[in-house]
Amino acid sequence: MSDLSTLVQGIQDGNMRALARACRLIDERDSHAFELLKRIFTHEGRAYVIGVTGTPGAGKSTLVDGLIRLYREQGKRVAVLAVDPTSPYTGGAILGDRIRMQQHFTDEGVFIRSIATRGHLGGLSRSTGDVLHVLRASTFDVVLLETVGVGQDELEVTQLADTTLVVMAPGLGDDIQAIKAGILEVADVFAVNKSDRVGADATVQDLQQMLALRRVPSPVSKTQGHTAVSTLRAAPEAEDGEWLPPILKTVAHRQEGLADLVDAFSKHRAFLTTTETGKAIQAERQVAEFHAILYQALIEAVDARFAEQVSEKLRDIVDRRADPYSSAEALVRSAMGEPQP
Amino acid sequence: MSDLSTLVQGIQDGNMRALARACRLIDERDSHAFELLKRIFTHEGRAYVIGVTGTPGAGKSTLVDGLIRLYREQGKRVAVLAVDPTSPYTGGAILGDRIRMQQHFTDEGVFIRSIATRGHLGGLSRSTGDVLHVLRASTFDVVLLETVGVGQDELEVTQLADTTLVVMAPGLGDDIQAIKAGILEVADVFAVNKSDRVGADATVQDLQQMLALRRVPSPVSKTQGHTAVSTLRAAPEAEDGEWLPPILKTVAHRQEGLADLVDAFSKHRAFLTTTETGKAIQAERQVAEFHAILYQALIEAVDARFAEQVSEKLRDIVDRRADPYSSAEALVRSAMGEPQP
Repeated sequence: MSDLSTLVQGIQDGNMRALARACRLIDERDSHAFELLKRIFTHEGRAYVIGVTGTPGAGKSTLVDGLIRLYREQGKRVAVLAVDPTSPYTGGAILGDRIRMQQHFTDEGVFIRSIATRGHLGGLSRSTGDVLHVLRASTFDVVLLETVGVGQDELEVTQLADTTLVVMAPGLGDDIQAIKAGILEVADVFAVNKSDRVGADATVQDLQQMLALRRVPSPVSKTQGHTAVSTLRAAPEAEDGEWLPPILKTVAHRQEGLADLVDAFSKHRAFLTTTETGKAIQAERQVAEFHAILYQALIEAVDARFAEQVSEKLRDIVDRRADPYSSAEALVRSAMGEPQP
Repeated sequence: MSDLSTLVQGIQDGNMRALARACRLIDERDSHAFELLKRIFTHEGRAYVIGVTGTPGAGKSTLVDGLIRLYREQGKRVAVLAVDPTSPYTGGAILGDRIRMQQHFTDEGVFIRSIATRGHLGGLSRSTGDVLHVLRASTFDVVLLETVGVGQDELEVTQLADTTLVVMAPGLGDDIQAIKAGILEVADVFAVNKSDRVGADATVQDLQQMLALRRVPSPVSKTQGHTAVSTLRAAPEAEDGEWLPPILKTVAHRQEGLADLVDAFSKHRAFLTTTETGKAIQAERQVAEFHAILYQALIEAVDARFAEQVSEKLRDIVDRRADPYSSAEALVRSAMGEPQP
């Protein structure tokens, strides 16, 4: 398909319209999307993906904005992928309309895209992963993968990034306690933003204490039949070759502390690419991603090829002539060309 | 397997140890779990499942506690399934240890279980759905499905309930705005808890306004290749045969307003079972659940039967000899007994 070749070339050239079209194909789970992804994978470029998550109200958007500005001043090409699973039903893209985005719209060196829709079975993180491969195959130096919330989905999405920044702020209350546990596990770098406010040092100390309490290696999470995503994160008491997440104070709206953040990202990148632990983390991420791609492909194949059987089974289930478990089992056998028992 | 028959009988009899064992089999994705689920499905009893979600700090736990007490006073058997996806890595069950649970531990008419672990690809909601079928096959009149947070996962989990209660409270700040959109879509009944506090009427009015702005039918959500979960929720301007989510004021720690809540649940149950719209919603839920069960069965079958091929492909991917998309495609063909192109 020569059209697809043009698209691949456009992506590699950093053509904004080609990028937007590729993202749309992925969003729509278009049949050409998979072919596109196969082709671009061999073209992975130099882009480094930084996940940005954190508590609501911590000033994430302002911080991402500041990072865009800093990288642009250094002449780097930046892509921002904003993930917003808040409203799957209306597909509302809160981020797409955000005013702060508009100041970068005329900048040829910045590509902004938001992912708002979310399918079932990990659909959000899979689409995000696919779009990241498109961005990695293009001309960007940095991809900022920003999440709106800080739920489980968001934490999972950040696992697609090379380095994950967690943004906190002083005095955001007790709710933070509840989510800290999950956040500690994914953070490679902490920013205590709004650090000109009262309580910034207390928040830093709080984080230090929680990091000190953390044990490594963490018990491997229960996953469904495949290798767990890396839990090989470093604790403060870590030995050589492990990563200690630095805690940095920032005041994003004044650009304070952002250069230090960027410096911490570089150090973490070096850790990932040069140490044995870092390489192991990267390999585990590849394992997790392959499983996710495989499961998605499997589901799409069954949906495409067994639609009629699925409908039949469904009629029986809704009419209470069959239970969904036996029906699923029979369909799986049928899909895999196995005899029914 | 006679052991399984004993377990099925125990579940039907409401034996607490049998129920705990069944939940454990499902948690562990034990190979007998699927067989168990097939067998119990035909025994679905009278249990009515009420999902309880809402903003942190709204007093959800106290309200669930109050509902347990109210139902017990009416001589009803109650199960509580607490879903806590906060910390997938450590598997920490915050709820399991909660003090408030302890007062019911000696009550033979109350079964409490928490689901804390979460796999990939919608694993949380699938395990929850499986456990719900076990509880439905037992002797309970009411199952309270309580979520800790209010992220996307929690909203998805509440779709497994017959009726979803959303708990809010006055003065919980701006963060609530961000999550309201999703909450509006899943709510069948609203409770404005802590309504003895300043601002309760404002919160009620706020909710009324948001409901008024809501349009029905909502645009059908983008899902991955299967029928969308129902968006046929009622708006305040709704016609005959649609459901208007009532907004009720409660003060849970004083048991105030809980009887009205229970009354609203009964009315919603009648709506689901007697109106065409209600029946359509139930049918759509069955469709969504069947797809989820099918996808899960598919993934588990491939994991079990193609483990060696998956490992081989993974070695090639980690060594950069193959891309994950082409590898997944080849494996899917192989799993489905199709020739490679």
